[in-house]
Amino acid sequence: MCQTTGPVTVGLLQHRTCPTAEAAWERVGVMAQEARQRGARLVVTPELFTTPYFPRTEDPGHFDHAEPIPGPTTEAMGRLARKLEIHLSASIFERRASGVYHNSTALLGPDGKILAVYRKMHIPDDPAFYEKFYFTPGDAGSECWRVAPIGGLKIGLLICWDQWFPEAARLNALRGAELLLYPTAIAWDRGEPEAEQLRQRDAWRVVQRAHAIANGVYVAAVNRVGDEGGLTFWGGSFIAGPGGEVLAEAASDREEVLVAHCDPARIEEVRRMWPFFRDRRLDAYGGLMHRWST
Amino acid sequence: MCQTTGPVTVGLLQHRTCPTAEAAWERVGVMAQEARQRGARLVVTPELFTTPYFPRTEDPGHFDHAEPIPGPTTEAMGRLARKLEIHLSASIFERRASGVYHNSTALLGPDGKILAVYRKMHIPDDPAFYEKFYFTPGDAGSECWRVAPIGGLKIGLLICWDQWFPEAARLNALRGAELLLYPTAIAWDRGEPEAEQLRQRDAWRVVQRAHAIANGVYVAAVNRVGDEGGLTFWGGSFIAGPGGEVLAEAASDREEVLVAHCDPARIEEVRRMWPFFRDRRLDAYGGLMHRWST
Repeated sequence: MCQTTGPVTVGLLQHRTCPTAEAAWERVGVMAQEARQRGARLVVTPELFTTPYFPRTEDPGHFDHAEPIPGPTTEAMGRLARKLEIHLSASIFERRASGVYHNSTALLGPDGKILAVYRKMHIPDDPAFYEKFYFTPGDAGSECWRVAPIGGLKIGLLICWDQWFPEAARLNALRGAELLLYPTAIAWDRGEPEAEQLRQRDAWRVVQRAHAIANGVYVAAVNRVGDEGGLTFWGGSFIAGPGGEVLAEAASDREEVLVAHCDPARIEEVRRMWPFFRDRRLDAYGGLMHRWST
Repeated sequence: MCQTTGPVTVGLLQHRTCPTAEAAWERVGVMAQEARQRGARLVVTPELFTTPYFPRTEDPGHFDHAEPIPGPTTEAMGRLARKLEIHLSASIFERRASGVYHNSTALLGPDGKILAVYRKMHIPDDPAFYEKFYFTPGDAGSECWRVAPIGGLKIGLLICWDQWFPEAARLNALRGAELLLYPTAIAWDRGEPEAEQLRQRDAWRVVQRAHAIANGVYVAAVNRVGDEGGLTFWGGSFIAGPGGEVLAEAASDREEVLVAHCDPARIEEVRRMWPFFRDRRLDAYGGLMHRWST
């Protein structure tokens, strides 16, 4: 069982897309078991792990992939969490109502029950990533940045495009989050030059490591891997510590279970040395509530 | 003369401390001339460039280093700016009144006049960096994030510790800043293990590159170099482009003039691909105005 105080080991499941949801549940079951054997008590799937990355095109037929919460995937993942006695962060293409779909995370406890649901707040839309067609942005306002305690560690649930927004990381940290989870589906367009591909992956890594540094928290990003259409999902899942140090990092071209130990004592140590929360200038931050200055 | 639209070349002067303010003006004069010859039209000094890093200790006698704006350093730097026909960002230990001192930047135009003054907003205080003793935090509230046009590029003036706060970078970008300047005095405590020293420098680099990425702006950090007491200032000045790419980077152990070309067209290109400003969730950012959630 999970400890009620102290460190937690997290396991990230970097995998390829599977032909069916059932096959994905099974693949995740095998990888979660490996993570558990290596000490993980919190296991995280990539974004939209039960389907191909369908937002490559805009096709109303793809809404057939969606399911409610609770639904078949939270039930299957709940059984898995119970069997392995782990917490499990499962990415769900959520059907909330006819015409209201979300890109969501369900956090399941070791009893198989749903502890929290987060609906992606920042939705991308660029060529081959047509997410605004599919996903209604999360609508819980400031209440969306809820933090879930897992054993001795408080978890902030975020998803993919959220990772480019320092505001989202900061808001979770201000709520007490000690580990930010970013299930992700990020890919190279194979038509782009290699230098541009490397720049993109590096920027993705840097911006998330900076959330760890600026907030003194752990950050875990889990990406899918493999080719789908003209896209190559670049894997590269990683876990960074509260000083920005990379604790574990996956390859770009294969499935991998990535495990790291997250200890709140390290957060205390880092924040005593670099106490950024002490010095934030609340009197001068009002402009953050504006779209632009003009 | 500076262009009124289009790209601007920036020059960073990474230098050691000098025995007197006059010697520092002279050193900066020589290095600025080199930067100018290499194309720079905006030249930037490190933080508190006219003095040793006196906040290593708390000593009321060090207030003798302070001077008003305008004052001797802005006059000397104004003459230099006029002579070289450049913009010049000069760091000043500012005496505003008896008992009111600031860590400030004066931006001088090619006519030698003061175009803008910024007073450091986030003030550090940790062992051997006792800045809260010396520096009153900037008190201009939201109005402190003023952006200065230099030729075709809008400049955001920030200083050292500000670089750890994503809010400060974002607020400048929202005001239209296209290049953020971070004059800096950051050092290793030579008593710390090398791995910890390298982690600190890497974190410093990553967090600022992330401001470039998250905001689609250029970032220029200019640090001092060399040993002072038990501290080793680690140089490593750099300029990053709006995709986070490092355009130029200085060594850790010697003086260096660093030059890079900053083109607003690259900002347009990057932001079309990664349009983060489109997707910020103003409805859910209210918590940023709080110190903590409890």
